Amino acid sequence: MQEFIDHLDAMAEVSGDVIRPYFRAAPDTEYKADASPVTVADKAAEQAIRGYLETHRPDDGIIGEEFGHHKGRSGLTWVIDPIDGTKPFIAGRATFGTLIGLWEGDRPVAGLIHQPILNEKWIGGPDIGTRFNGTPVACRPCAALKNARAGSTSPDQFREMPGIRKTLEDETAFVIWGGDCYSYGLLALGGLDLVCEACLKVHDYAALVPVVLGAGGTMSDFDGNPLTLESDGRVIASGDPRIHDEFVNRVSAFR
Amino acid sequence: MQEFIDHLDAMAEVSGDVIRPYFRAAPDTEYKADASPVTVADKAAEQAIRGYLETHRPDDGIIGEEFGHHKGRSGLTWVIDPIDGTKPFIAGRATFGTLIGLWEGDRPVAGLIHQPILNEKWIGGPDIGTRFNGTPVACRPCAALKNARAGSTSPDQFREMPGIRKTLEDETAFVIWGGDCYSYGLLALGGLDLVCEACLKVHDYAALVPVVLGAGGTMSDFDGNPLTLESDGRVIASGDPRIHDEFVNRVSAFR
Repeated sequence: MQEFIDHLDAMAEVSGDVIRPYFRAAPDTEYKADASPVTVADKAAEQAIRGYLETHRPDDGIIGEEFGHHKGRSGLTWVIDPIDGTKPFIAGRATFGTLIGLWEGDRPVAGLIHQPILNEKWIGGPDIGTRFNGTPVACRPCAALKNARAGSTSPDQFREMPGIRKTLEDETAFVIWGGDCYSYGLLALGGLDLVCEACLKVHDYAALVPVVLGAGGTMSDFDGNPLTLESDGRVIASGDPRIHDEFVNRVSAFR
Repeated sequence: MQEFIDHLDAMAEVSGDVIRPYFRAAPDTEYKADASPVTVADKAAEQAIRGYLETHRPDDGIIGEEFGHHKGRSGLTWVIDPIDGTKPFIAGRATFGTLIGLWEGDRPVAGLIHQPILNEKWIGGPDIGTRFNGTPVACRPCAALKNARAGSTSPDQFREMPGIRKTLEDETAFVIWGGDCYSYGLLALGGLDLVCEACLKVHDYAALVPVVLGAGGTMSDFDGNPLTLESDGRVIASGDPRIHDEFVNRVSAFR
């Protein structure tokens, strides 16, 4: 297992070195079919990570946001989002992150959330705990939804489910918006208690699951089922299982 | 004028030293009548800033978020928000800031936005330009709303004006949420083009106006009028006047 942690550590360094020069440097941007801005840094960072894996883990599979799926033969798959939070990246706000998740089939093994501008690195997994810059961290206890500090990237993802947005806004202690992957890092530090998103891709959540589980949190789809690499991208992450059950129940009324 | 810049610089140091130890340290929180969380750090930082002003600028007025209005006799007023963005502060996200604005009657003179965890400091004013950590910065040109990168703290503030939220989401390049004062700093760096908020207090916007104006931007209320210390807290800030006029026109349809 230490080998995987060392690989995640090394890939954080490799991708961080690629990304840093582009931050606030007015990089060329292009637009994908879904209109999300993608920077040159995004592609270069994924190439750097894939290059690392091809050298050090040639038998493993790779799923990357930019360069697709490479099927492996070891049963292990690395899932890469080189820059999660491209909008804050382009705006110059260091709340984006590099995400790398390692899964064995549908079982999360280990994950990395890396904020390369602030040099903040979460590495964790269900069997190894979660460390923030090397120090073990944990979610905080929070018994009731009304005391929960919530986070979510954008209200727009709840356009078809306004009840969820209203629950986040009206039935928690507060909600901070605009977090992307960073919110899950804050959950693992005990800063937030609940994160809810409705339209993640597999490369968005594959790294988050092991980090959250390793910090003692819970992560599921809107039905309360554990996430797999085939989940529908509607996710709820909680620091305390009591809130998780309460929020899943609440959400079930709005779908 | 250099004297005022030096005072803002010094107060950033003084308040930053007070705030830093409380960040991610699970400080005691209490709740004000309006239910916004206020930390111990918030009060201690405002006391430190007021103490500095009482020593160095005893004849000036002070408006502070936590400790009210002290009427001066010089015609100059310092407007203080020790921690703008208390929710991200409590969650552990360094997108909050210390705000100090200096006004002469209804004329903005100079302002400070300070992010003490990242050591990022914007100081600016209409007659002195705006500097970011000492380097002159400017808003970027952006000719049309559809190309604008927008920011806003929370969709909840547009509950009574859903058309504004929809305009931000559907008619700009993108909107990032959850910015608080930090979005105005990004505007002054050319990272964002437009920021809109509907419920600011005078201590929230008094420092932002001089920083935005000094970077070549425009800031007004929803009618397009310049902000004063008596404005209603509905503000639009733009990096390019062409967007400003376009957005003010759009907003006028929704009130």
